[in-house]
Amino acid sequence: MDSMEQKLEILVDSLLLDYQKGRDIDRTLSYRHPDKDAIIDMTVKLLRIVYPGYSRDKSFRIYNAKHNLSMLIEDVVFHLIEQITLVLQDSMERDTARETAQKLSLAFMEQIPAIRAMAQTDVDAAFAGDPAAASKDEIIFCYPGLFAITVYRLAHGLQQLQVPTIPRIMTEYAHSVTGIDIHPGATIGDHFFIDHGTGIVIGETTVIGSHVKIYQGVTLGGLSTRGGQSLRGIKRHPTIEDHVTIYAGASILGGETVIGHHSVIGANAFITDSVPSCTTAVSLEQPLQMKQRHCPGCGKQE
Amino acid sequence: MDSMEQKLEILVDSLLLDYQKGRDIDRTLSYRHPDKDAIIDMTVKLLRIVYPGYSRDKSFRIYNAKHNLSMLIEDVVFHLIEQITLVLQDSMERDTARETAQKLSLAFMEQIPAIRAMAQTDVDAAFAGDPAAASKDEIIFCYPGLFAITVYRLAHGLQQLQVPTIPRIMTEYAHSVTGIDIHPGATIGDHFFIDHGTGIVIGETTVIGSHVKIYQGVTLGGLSTRGGQSLRGIKRHPTIEDHVTIYAGASILGGETVIGHHSVIGANAFITDSVPSCTTAVSLEQPLQMKQRHCPGCGKQE
Amino acid sequence: MDSMEQKLEILVDSLLLDYQKGRDIDRTLSYRHPDKDAIIDMTVKLLRIVYPGYSRDKSFRIYNAKHNLSMLIEDVVFHLIEQITLVLQDSMERDTARETAQKLSLAFMEQIPAIRAMAQTDVDAAFAGDPAAASKDEIIFCYPGLFAITVYRLAHGLQQLQVPTIPRIMTEYAHSVTGIDIHPGATIGDHFFIDHGTGIVIGETTVIGSHVKIYQGVTLGGLSTRGGQSLRGIKRHPTIEDHVTIYAGASILGGETVIGHHSVIGANAFITDSVPSCTTAVSLEQPLQMKQRHCPGCGKQE
Repeated sequence: MDSMEQKLEILVDSLLLDYQKGRDIDRTLSYRHPDKDAIIDMTVKLLRIVYPGYSRDKSFRIYNAKHNLSMLIEDVVFHLIEQITLVLQDSMERDTARETAQKLSLAFMEQIPAIRAMAQTDVDAAFAGDPAAASKDEIIFCYPGLFAITVYRLAHGLQQLQVPTIPRIMTEYAHSVTGIDIHPGATIGDHFFIDHGTGIVIGETTVIGSHVKIYQGVTLGGLSTRGGQSLRGIKRHPTIEDHVTIYAGASILGGETVIGHHSVIGANAFITDSVPSCTTAVSLEQPLQMKQRHCPGCGKQE
Repeated sequence: MDSMEQKLEILVDSLLLDYQKGRDIDRTLSYRHPDKDAIIDMTVKLLRIVYPGYSRDKSFRIYNAKHNLSMLIEDVVFHLIEQITLVLQDSMERDTARETAQKLSLAFMEQIPAIRAMAQTDVDAAFAGDPAAASKDEIIFCYPGLFAITVYRLAHGLQQLQVPTIPRIMTEYAHSVTGIDIHPGATIGDHFFIDHGTGIVIGETTVIGSHVKIYQGVTLGGLSTRGGQSLRGIKRHPTIEDHVTIYAGASILGGETVIGHHSVIGANAFITDSVPSCTTAVSLEQPLQMKQRHCPGCGKQE
Repeated sequence: MDSMEQKLEILVDSLLLDYQKGRDIDRTLSYRHPDKDAIIDMTVKLLRIVYPGYSRDKSFRIYNAKHNLSMLIEDVVFHLIEQITLVLQDSMERDTARETAQKLSLAFMEQIPAIRAMAQTDVDAAFAGDPAAASKDEIIFCYPGLFAITVYRLAHGLQQLQVPTIPRIMTEYAHSVTGIDIHPGATIGDHFFIDHGTGIVIGETTVIGSHVKIYQGVTLGGLSTRGGQSLRGIKRHPTIEDHVTIYAGASILGGETVIGHHSVIGANAFITDSVPSCTTAVSLEQPLQMKQRHCPGCGKQE
């Protein structure tokens, strides 16, 4: 085992040396970075503030709701200030960062009632739109679409206050849980319903109106990313007007593409030009080639 | 900091006010709701009961398997009764709810051997069907398809006993872990194999036979959900007969659509009409447009 | 409650009986199996070794980086030896297994600097390729593509040393977190960029060059798996040469299919034959059928 220890020591030394190459990945000052775990924990608590009756804080009772809620909010604000300070301190003095973080955190928390009002419309839209929804409780408890949308609405609030990095960590957390990737920079109206959801991508500069319904595998994306960083900030993703339904697997691409209000986009449609309002745009079904086969398991041809 | 405290207090007050609007999201009595975390924990323990050797309860040894198993089962039954009572108490008295929950929990647990028998056929199907599977151990340890199917089989057992909300929380947990969304109401035969799996959707009224094989991105869905809640309970999703293989990205839609036994559905096929048995249905490949380009990186045209 | 206890006892007995049928799922000796939770924990720690500054070990400071790193590495090596011993002991004596595990663990850890060098190129590629990336920090913190690629690179290192089961548990963990399914047997060059990622499948015998860029929903897969286990080890998945970009939803299938260097594969292309180098291969867009409709919500036809 002595030789094992020696080998380990050589190993450690060689890795320590490897950290001294000055690359991005060699940054070791984790205490100068935001704390991803703390941000995810805060996101979960923010969801509890939005839907107070749907997660378990066993001591929560209506007659001391004020105390519980106070504690929960104070906890969230504390961590929010902490994390915003960390992401701001690269561009300003620590004291200024902290002061700014306090202002931003309060400004964000004041948006919560407006975010909750939106959340209720999203619940309503899910219940109205999904025959498989047995109750609104079921939707709030377990619909991944509602989860991803609510996390997006919270992250978007921070994004609008120009808080860096944290909003994206929040939406990537939701992406990981749901397979729904909504960039915090997107703009999305009320009564938004996502069904199933896995594989949905909604890009940074997408604009979505009210009463829009989207199914699994839909991409609202850019036409090409060959420009890379030179495209930063430019509108690269589509605009979806009010009351549009987009069925599974459709791709709508490009910053100048507009889907007019009350239109329906069929499954798997590939769209790079605008669609007028009150229009059903269906991808012509690819003809199927049917071939009877001598069936190995079945043994008969029918 | 005094002013910070005052601001926090105003914030808390405004949020408390926001909870008094009587909307769905304003329900704050979490102790009258099922406990999602407890249900997920119970699901993980049920999986350990199905595959006892594949997760780590370090004290588990064959000579006291009975004690360990007893403890595990008692724990699961205890939580099951607890959670079923919670979801039933909206529609009946607490005492009746508890009594019913006890009966339902035992009735469910008695199905476990039958569910385990199905699980073994699913393991066999995965090993037979996947050249990348190095061993059955590897399948039981890490195949997301088997995970999602087994959670579905457990949830379906509860669903058949008319237990509300809990089955969907279980399958949405599996959806979150695997990207595979199987509604607990679906009916699925033995030897079911899902490969890769991300993006699969299997709707509530789908019926799937034995020896069926499904790849990533497949949707077994409804034709339109414009009817919303008015479609509740109606068969909206397809029937897949025995020995059918459905390749990646195919969509099969509609409650009257039947895929006959021993048929093969090609990748990306979009199917809204029935396909006879012993038939290969392939979407005609979309012709490719190939264009040589002056290659920026390569600099030569070939 | 007495009768409940009796019923529970009958239940336990019937389940114990069910474990004695000698099926794969009846194996109950979990202590002879690797420990999935320990392997996932080890994977998270390996990621911390690759990107030391991006996760939170609050005590980590530059002036005692050596101590922290030593502890982290020793911990990882300890668990690695433990788990490799467990997966090897089916095919060799326990002592030989342990000795082999020690050698393999050290051999693997010595690859870490090379894996880190690759990881830095992946970070560079993501930043260069994505206009939505605000900083390299954001990429390392929260891009699921980088997460899945890095876990793959680590798992691939173990796979090359012929360690069974563990590499697949690692990549399936990443699959679960990201929706990106990269088999540890695949071969992937430097500067690899995956954007969004959900629904990507990269099969066991895929070969990918340098500077390749892949979007969500792309499958690099086999043409048919009807051969099942008889196809084990045969090259069934495509080869992607340097500087290729593959847009969302494209499927490239077959072991003899080669995408030549500097080529671009368009969204949703379905490719089963080779594509020459410096070529743009675009699936001809499926024509859209546009139909004005009497709009229920809007009430006007435009």
